[in-house]
Amino acid sequence: MEQVFPYEHLHAFTRDVFLKIGCTPEHAQLAATVLLSADLRGIDSHGVARLSGYIRLWEAGRINPLPDIRIVHETPSTAVVDGDGGLGLVVAPFAMQVAIEKAKIAGTGWVSVRHSNHFGIAGYHAMMALRHDMIGMAMTNASPLVAPTFATERMLGTNPIAVAIPAATQPAFVADFATTTAANGKLEILQRKEQEAPLGWIQDKNGVPSTNPNELKSGGALLPLGGDREHGSHKGYCLGSVVDIFSAVLSGANYGPWAPPFVSFLPLPPDPVGKGLGHFFGAMRVDAFRPADEFKDHMDTWINRFRNAATAEGHEKVLIPGDPEREMQAERLEAGVPLLGPVVKDLGEIAMKFKIDF
Amino acid sequence: MEQVFPYEHLHAFTRDVFLKIGCTPEHAQLAATVLLSADLRGIDSHGVARLSGYIRLWEAGRINPLPDIRIVHETPSTAVVDGDGGLGLVVAPFAMQVAIEKAKIAGTGWVSVRHSNHFGIAGYHAMMALRHDMIGMAMTNASPLVAPTFATERMLGTNPIAVAIPAATQPAFVADFATTTAANGKLEILQRKEQEAPLGWIQDKNGVPSTNPNELKSGGALLPLGGDREHGSHKGYCLGSVVDIFSAVLSGANYGPWAPPFVSFLPLPPDPVGKGLGHFFGAMRVDAFRPADEFKDHMDTWINRFRNAATAEGHEKVLIPGDPEREMQAERLEAGVPLLGPVVKDLGEIAMKFKIDF
Repeated sequence: MEQVFPYEHLHAFTRDVFLKIGCTPEHAQLAATVLLSADLRGIDSHGVARLSGYIRLWEAGRINPLPDIRIVHETPSTAVVDGDGGLGLVVAPFAMQVAIEKAKIAGTGWVSVRHSNHFGIAGYHAMMALRHDMIGMAMTNASPLVAPTFATERMLGTNPIAVAIPAATQPAFVADFATTTAANGKLEILQRKEQEAPLGWIQDKNGVPSTNPNELKSGGALLPLGGDREHGSHKGYCLGSVVDIFSAVLSGANYGPWAPPFVSFLPLPPDPVGKGLGHFFGAMRVDAFRPADEFKDHMDTWINRFRNAATAEGHEKVLIPGDPEREMQAERLEAGVPLLGPVVKDLGEIAMKFKIDF
Repeated sequence: MEQVFPYEHLHAFTRDVFLKIGCTPEHAQLAATVLLSADLRGIDSHGVARLSGYIRLWEAGRINPLPDIRIVHETPSTAVVDGDGGLGLVVAPFAMQVAIEKAKIAGTGWVSVRHSNHFGIAGYHAMMALRHDMIGMAMTNASPLVAPTFATERMLGTNPIAVAIPAATQPAFVADFATTTAANGKLEILQRKEQEAPLGWIQDKNGVPSTNPNELKSGGALLPLGGDREHGSHKGYCLGSVVDIFSAVLSGANYGPWAPPFVSFLPLPPDPVGKGLGHFFGAMRVDAFRPADEFKDHMDTWINRFRNAATAEGHEKVLIPGDPEREMQAERLEAGVPLLGPVVKDLGEIAMKFKIDF
């Protein structure tokens, strides 16, 4: 059912596909690295499994392979970047780099992005800040799949937030999570296994809690982190909303239910309120607050203390955000990336279409 | 059981109490306004009900009524403020004002605070940005009551986040929430009513989910937003951790389990890793991204669209963050603030102690 591929093989293939759709060599290389960082980190739903989705969006004319990505407005600590309809996989690193350059001079940099597309995993972009002894943040809005508390309509995407914080001898703290109870990729796994979803993940088209993982196909919705009002779903709804507003209202992208869908078979929402999808990035120099070494030593103390907190029975240790993904990356760089049968088939079809080896 | 008091009466009383402990008239006035903004907005657990708690901390020598609040480090868009052990109720507005002044020049301002105390509700401080056409953010760490996912130890506070975003004709979007499933104040209500808590709010001292609202008194813990791993508690744990690190590791305050408790009968944790409690504030000029009128018009569209989303049966409309609190404030300014018997008794004892009228 699963086949394992060396990372380098998948990377070369993915780069070649992006070249075939007309990206520059530099962009093709970068887009492959960003996309595959999801596979390396074990977030399989956001990696090479989505390559065919990007291709179909390009075929539908919704992705510009040769974008003129540029700053359209700026102040000492802020900028708005227009992605010119390019791959989010290349627009996002451009914008995050702008945030980092702003932070070098102003202490922090904050960049809102319009007219972009899906950007892979938020964590990749946030982690760009680490090598500069900066805290990195990345978020994006996304296809509307989530119903606010009390609503039946899908108004928000899974709108992830990533925060990367450097430490000294400890690996960095890297949080990267959807603002829903469960990401859509987890539902897809249950669909394939024909298993029920826990209550609190989804509701049906009438807003009634459901355990049927296929509910989204018949008008249902994902639920904000918290699941229901009694368990704080209004807080998940707040978080998803803040991501939407920072990413799209600040920049001039489409927000809420106007966010363009990732799938090419759904039409773009009529009467757009902006351009494309939106992202938001932040970089904060830690020495804009206190000496970097002092900060990073305290992060070591923080991480050590939390990692060694007393655990409940059945759990060996408390995880630090980023631990599981870092361990997965080390494993997959060594042993290769396992892909499910349908993904391998998809990639084979892409190879045929573009007459390249897979 | 309840008694209703005019807001002005409670404000004058609270101000007089802060004068009695040695605050300047300006600080006493401000501290009363910040503290009572919780009562007005219906967050009764954080308002005048806590006045006796602040007094006891002062009696224990843990609050400095005449602090020298000052900036100890800064860049164009950042600052670290030392609260000199003062009331968070006055340290926080000082720091938020620094963030606003930074934003006027650099586009954004970000201020981390050390050596402070509890600051009332986060929403008050975030909302200070609104009148400047800025987005405001406020967060704070707090007494350790929350167990990270898989842990039995209390490592984090309820660590709230507030985000205030201006609109044009619509009232502002104001999110203000603890990063736990339920705030501690909600547990206290269940304790008084002798009712059970929903699963997902708390665990016992062994890390087993519990419905007993008294669990915290016997070594149990509050749970991060999400409740358990299957429902995303690791995301709530990430959020609470980010608040802790931004508020306390960036500034040089006490973080994690070292955060000083709000109650005077608990000793301060030994071997402190910093000074006092920490906060973090942000201000972003919306016109650092796009013209303010354009932004605010789109916020009106956002708010209208969400407020009018189709609702599940039994719900009239989808709420916009800040709606319930704003309605409560209008009502209580008009009809007065209801206080529970034990709170009235507490205030009566404070009045006796300081020989002032209540």
